Amino acid sequence: MATDRSQYWAVSRGEETRKRIVERGLTLATSVGLEGLTLGMLAEELKLSKSGLFAHFDSKEAIQQAVLQEATEQFVRTVIAPALSRPRGEPRVRALFEHHLAWLSRQQRGGCIFMATAIEYDDRPGPIRNQVLQTQRDWLEVLSRAAHIAVQEKHFVPGLEPEQFAHEQQSISLGFNYAHRLLRDPRAKVHAETAFHALITRAKSS
Amino acid sequence: MATDRSQYWAVSRGEETRKRIVERGLTLATSVGLEGLTLGMLAEELKLSKSGLFAHFDSKEAIQQAVLQEATEQFVRTVIAPALSRPRGEPRVRALFEHHLAWLSRQQRGGCIFMATAIEYDDRPGPIRNQVLQTQRDWLEVLSRAAHIAVQEKHFVPGLEPEQFAHEQQSISLGFNYAHRLLRDPRAKVHAETAFHALITRAKSS
Repeated sequence: MATDRSQYWAVSRGEETRKRIVERGLTLATSVGLEGLTLGMLAEELKLSKSGLFAHFDSKEAIQQAVLQEATEQFVRTVIAPALSRPRGEPRVRALFEHHLAWLSRQQRGGCIFMATAIEYDDRPGPIRNQVLQTQRDWLEVLSRAAHIAVQEKHFVPGLEPEQFAHEQQSISLGFNYAHRLLRDPRAKVHAETAFHALITRAKSS
Repeated sequence: MATDRSQYWAVSRGEETRKRIVERGLTLATSVGLEGLTLGMLAEELKLSKSGLFAHFDSKEAIQQAVLQEATEQFVRTVIAPALSRPRGEPRVRALFEHHLAWLSRQQRGGCIFMATAIEYDDRPGPIRNQVLQTQRDWLEVLSRAAHIAVQEKHFVPGLEPEQFAHEQQSISLGFNYAHRLLRDPRAKVHAETAFHALITRAKSS
């Protein structure tokens, strides 16, 4: 029993450390880039020895993958899940947009890791690019699927192309991120909402 | 006379080297980021000594500024100038969009430095961020001004807000860059053109 309990605590402490590494990795990656993340930098920030870090992750790539995975889980939890609990059709489409804008507004120094990695890995082949790409394709698929359901629910016109809708919705979010974070434009949100309103209007009438 | 001529050649060679440094810096910066550019990297690539490099630029920041300046001049020459030679109003607005898409499509490995630095410097204060910001504000001002002229020419409706139009046009270009470079989506151009067509339609009727 004593052994079991001490094993339990060892595992638990191990998980706790792993979690700290991934969370700090995510914070750092939004500033220095996922590619700029180094084991040395993380060890120093977390006051861990490099061998202590290696006990959890045996390569930089393993940490990068875990960081992206953590960001994806946070995104699903705070953007996608609450929107999927909204009624099918237009309300869900709107909720996806609103939660995405809130996510982009809430990100601290360094900004949204998905926006950063979309540029960082646009021409850097390898497993991390593939993971970034898959996350983005999944997200566009969620947007596209929500638009498709809005057609089924007769909120949007039958001729609507869900992929075109998803692409335009994402473009509006990219524009918001650019105006809000780079330009610090106080009208960033109004601009994005006006564009999205026009997109919805077209989806209902064209 | 002999002295004048040799001075002339010395200046000319100096300018040639300076040009080579800036052009190579621009190519490298699109891959490693403007922040990732180092004097050592440039010296090695160009087979120059560090002191040879220092004769032209006394700091990394001086090279970064020259690289951004060079990119801006290329952008003005290949995107803005040809569009400004088109008739005032809708033709000029359309030309700005088409030349911008062509610019984004043509960029080699690493992509458009403005798209990259917009993310890289969104939260990195200092003179380089200010220069990036100014370039982007100038570009949005060009787009906004073209839309305003299209209102004056009665191609667009009187109530149109030029800044909203410029923001949406830029969002469509950001979406194109994302779909074309990251996702390698073969429909990236069609998606962007469809979105821009809808923006023009609204500008003429809403």
